[in-house]
Amino acid sequence: MTGIDDLPIRDELRGKSPYGAPQLDVPVRLNTNENPHPLPEALVARIAERVTEAARNLNRYPDRDAVELRGELARYLTRTAGHEVTAENVWAANGSNEVLQQLLQAFGGPGRTAIGFEPSYSMHALIARGTGTGWISGPRNDDFTIDVEAAKAVIAERRPHVVFVCSPNNPTGTAVDADTVLALYAAAQAARPAMVIVDEAYGEFSHRPSLLPLIDGRPNLVVSRTMSKAFGAAGLRLGYLAAHPAVVDAVQLVRLPYHLSAVTQATALAALEHTDTLLGYVRQLKEERDRLVTELRAMGCEVTESDANFVQFGNFDGPGGAHAVWQALLERGVLVRDNGVPGRLRVTAGTPAENDAFLDAVRAVLKENNR
Amino acid sequence: MTGIDDLPIRDELRGKSPYGAPQLDVPVRLNTNENPHPLPEALVARIAERVTEAARNLNRYPDRDAVELRGELARYLTRTAGHEVTAENVWAANGSNEVLQQLLQAFGGPGRTAIGFEPSYSMHALIARGTGTGWISGPRNDDFTIDVEAAKAVIAERRPHVVFVCSPNNPTGTAVDADTVLALYAAAQAARPAMVIVDEAYGEFSHRPSLLPLIDGRPNLVVSRTMSKAFGAAGLRLGYLAAHPAVVDAVQLVRLPYHLSAVTQATALAALEHTDTLLGYVRQLKEERDRLVTELRAMGCEVTESDANFVQFGNFDGPGGAHAVWQALLERGVLVRDNGVPGRLRVTAGTPAENDAFLDAVRAVLKENNR
Repeated sequence: MTGIDDLPIRDELRGKSPYGAPQLDVPVRLNTNENPHPLPEALVARIAERVTEAARNLNRYPDRDAVELRGELARYLTRTAGHEVTAENVWAANGSNEVLQQLLQAFGGPGRTAIGFEPSYSMHALIARGTGTGWISGPRNDDFTIDVEAAKAVIAERRPHVVFVCSPNNPTGTAVDADTVLALYAAAQAARPAMVIVDEAYGEFSHRPSLLPLIDGRPNLVVSRTMSKAFGAAGLRLGYLAAHPAVVDAVQLVRLPYHLSAVTQATALAALEHTDTLLGYVRQLKEERDRLVTELRAMGCEVTESDANFVQFGNFDGPGGAHAVWQALLERGVLVRDNGVPGRLRVTAGTPAENDAFLDAVRAVLKENNR
Repeated sequence: MTGIDDLPIRDELRGKSPYGAPQLDVPVRLNTNENPHPLPEALVARIAERVTEAARNLNRYPDRDAVELRGELARYLTRTAGHEVTAENVWAANGSNEVLQQLLQAFGGPGRTAIGFEPSYSMHALIARGTGTGWISGPRNDDFTIDVEAAKAVIAERRPHVVFVCSPNNPTGTAVDADTVLALYAAAQAARPAMVIVDEAYGEFSHRPSLLPLIDGRPNLVVSRTMSKAFGAAGLRLGYLAAHPAVVDAVQLVRLPYHLSAVTQATALAALEHTDTLLGYVRQLKEERDRLVTELRAMGCEVTESDANFVQFGNFDGPGGAHAVWQALLERGVLVRDNGVPGRLRVTAGTPAENDAFLDAVRAVLKENNR
């Protein structure tokens, strides 16, 4: 039987497995940081309307530059992220993964390197590999904040072409303050002209303001965002960035032409009309996230400070470590995520009922383990 | 003012412009090989239904593996392309450009090379550049067919890792016969294990059967397809491939997770329910294509044999060459494509009225030039 390794595949892909959280059919799924609120019916109806309109012209290529959508995303950022931007500052693609891939095609790639501070979003390293960009794993403190002095030292020594800063950080939930970003930016520019990518996929859930204003006067700084989380639209695959217009020009050199379908553009535009309702859900989720932190701590769990729609908890140093707890929770019908951070698991803030089920399951598992 | 060249962009991108046909607002646009038939209203309504269903679950990630869609694409191929395939043989992405990009990430990339026989679809070379794959420009005969002996010689000498065969070829319209593909496949495998990618974006418009049956027993042969042309869905961005299941496993190592949105999957599934109607439009377009060939020849134009939904015509060797004719047609409200093939232009088969307008404009331009 012919398998992958019988094909003339690149050597570094041999023996690898595809990325992806295990998708298991269990009652409570809190493993992929999805928003538990379905879109309101009024928005579903508006999506049908706008997609119908788009479908009547589907035989034509979509707007290659997605100008209307970029304008509406810019309006949203201007209104919510504390800095005025226009369509010229914004670029959109199929999920922030594709945004990051385009950035690495333009500013990383063969013969170049990127650094991230781990544990962090594992796709940063995987997209680096997929674009031929060398990967440097930078350090964090024991509390999962970025160790600024250590980070500056490794940047000075390794001189990366791209620096990833994930804030709030996935899977730890840790926000990064503006001073830290500025220190890393300065260190990166001192080593060589380098792009700094601030991944704000979970930005709307933070206690702190967006880092977007930092793009002002810094053409080598990019903020990436997504509609997957705050807009409750993981199924839509709509990621975007905001940066100096020259960055938007640069990614257009590497983007596949007509990468963003007319139905995706229409659906995203409909969702942006319902921003206020969706941000209301975000406020509820932040409360639930804070409740998870409080109740887990009350059980005696270590919990990492969270600015996201998920919470990292542990520290499980018993037999089997975090994975044994992951398994025990799964046996109680609750799926969380084991990101491979020693002793830690990650749980997404779900509906109040889902969170109750999760907390009950943790209580039961801890009780069993302490018996 | 900061521009692209002030950014730390890759050297090979400096001074480049984004790919894309000029989009001009003229009455008759026959420049991007779009299908001129809007989707039937029954299909538009079905898209709205299926997208509504998908939108109710949009807060969740889409099916990462698009299993239902791949199954329906396999049924379509089995029914129309003369070879039985299943979901395991099929992979789908955002346009065949993304399919090709994933194939080059897995089988091309830094330190590897791909060959195409030019003039051909210019995105092959651009996607090679975007993935760090070296590009080799192979030869064609004066009539734009592939010069098999010359192709075999250059493959033996240069030993590419990927061989592109575009059939029907864009922008010339030239179909490639199975014997030619088999000769190139044998030459490529003799040089080194290499992937052969048959790009059948315009396959449904051909006088000849699909080359799909050639994948049988040849794990290093891939056929790529699109819903942009025959399905009248350029705005949907749905490309796919058929190959040995190991190839599908391989692209899953490099694809971005959840690359294909739930609305794209829903829309494509709706379109596949209406295959018979859409293939009826294809039959009409083939007749119009043949009419364009006949009438252009009757005017004394040289015309390349076409198996696609477009026609390459010329040979314009007067002052200003093909571009002067392109400009003269544009001044008469007809936009065709100058692909840079010396002396030649490409026209898409439009509606009967659009084709009449185009033919009248050519007649007028030729008359003026002969005055």
